[in-house]
Amino acid sequence: MRYKITLGYDGTGFCGWQSQPNGESIQDAVERAAFKLFGENVRVVGSGRTDAGVHALFQVAHFDCAKELPCKNVISGFNAYLPRTVRVSAASIAGGGFDARKSAKKKTYMYLMYRCAHSHPVLNDRALFVGSDIDVAAMSRAASELIGTHDFASFMAAGSGAKTSTRTVYDARFDDDGFMIKFFITANGFLYNMVRIITAQLIKAGKGESVDIKSLIAARDRTLAKETAPACGLYLYDVDYGDADESASGNV
Amino acid sequence: MRYKITLGYDGTGFCGWQSQPNGESIQDAVERAAFKLFGENVRVVGSGRTDAGVHALFQVAHFDCAKELPCKNVISGFNAYLPRTVRVSAASIAGGGFDARKSAKKKTYMYLMYRCAHSHPVLNDRALFVGSDIDVAAMSRAASELIGTHDFASFMAAGSGAKTSTRTVYDARFDDDGFMIKFFITANGFLYNMVRIITAQLIKAGKGESVDIKSLIAARDRTLAKETAPACGLYLYDVDYGDADESASGNV
Repeated sequence: MRYKITLGYDGTGFCGWQSQPNGESIQDAVERAAFKLFGENVRVVGSGRTDAGVHALFQVAHFDCAKELPCKNVISGFNAYLPRTVRVSAASIAGGGFDARKSAKKKTYMYLMYRCAHSHPVLNDRALFVGSDIDVAAMSRAASELIGTHDFASFMAAGSGAKTSTRTVYDARFDDDGFMIKFFITANGFLYNMVRIITAQLIKAGKGESVDIKSLIAARDRTLAKETAPACGLYLYDVDYGDADESASGNV
Repeated sequence: MRYKITLGYDGTGFCGWQSQPNGESIQDAVERAAFKLFGENVRVVGSGRTDAGVHALFQVAHFDCAKELPCKNVISGFNAYLPRTVRVSAASIAGGGFDARKSAKKKTYMYLMYRCAHSHPVLNDRALFVGSDIDVAAMSRAASELIGTHDFASFMAAGSGAKTSTRTVYDARFDDDGFMIKFFITANGFLYNMVRIITAQLIKAGKGESVDIKSLIAARDRTLAKETAPACGLYLYDVDYGDADESASGNV
């Protein structure tokens, strides 16, 4: 029985999605809750790893397990056993062909900033304070250069193990309500730290520095884009499975 | 020398504004930082107490101290010594007649809720999850009945020690962006737990229960409004000193 679950989490206290030798990961928390719920050791596969301190509004994961439970009991059972910083919002039975990571067609990340003369402690660990002087129009112009299929090697941290650094960015846009500034980026996949490295460049553009995204892409040289925006502002926002969603995934 | 400071805090880890025999209060944190900054024991007086778990965007406080420092050094010095969950955003020299509590003419609280099919861990301790089925128009109608000068005894928790339970509510309104629902209430003062007791009634109205604020006010009976909304959604949003602000407060 393959289950697909959707979950949200506050990444603040975790060492990231993926199990690590040291530290508590979200995967650990979900697997421990699954053991209590199903009485089986399961291996939970996420749509992708999120780093320490990165949040998720809609992360998707799958796992295989012998026991069948009604989906609403899966949701309530997980939420009874999970820490309150992790919540399961949906569960379904997926076909064996569905793979939370491999079947993903598009992912969207949101990077959350706020514009103010001073920082607000209530937003600590949840959004990046960028001061009151930030030019979102300049950031939007720079972000628009990201759209398309490019080699994003300049925006990839070492240690990713990705076979290729070419990705297709479908959308990169800002939403600004005067206080909260949201940057949304949708692609067929992301390289290690790609969104945070891109965001750091966009913030430089917003602060009046001259940033040429086109040249940075063409250079394929990480040393030209050294900065990485803090994890606290980053949210995995959506995973889109398109036609490969569970309904179309083989052995249903 | 009387200083006026404006500060924001994440109330989550604190036992409230006011020093308590057990637990760390925001007042304790500010007084400890003041000692490090000025080398003097000072007593910090806030515009009012906030309960454990209640946040502040713009709390105002005053304290007296012999040493004079430039205001920008007061801000940066406090922020160097305070925990990161408390930030000072403004400082000024106030006249001796200025009293953060007694000189306050109006206060505004915000109660933050969010509408969704499921809870978002990232909003834990910061906003109240009210589900997806909530009628903000009904809440607004009920809230409008609060405006005016009334005896709010029905909305006062025991133990406040207030001399009178009559208060004037100047404004009570909702702002709803489809996801975040903000309730703003401005009055010349608030009774103990008044905003949280009111909010609990408004949520009942939003959930389709019959709530008659006018009758509740007239009854002056707390047993008719038993519920108290959780602290996590409540923010001290603004303190207005009107003409009694430091510029007009006597011995400047």
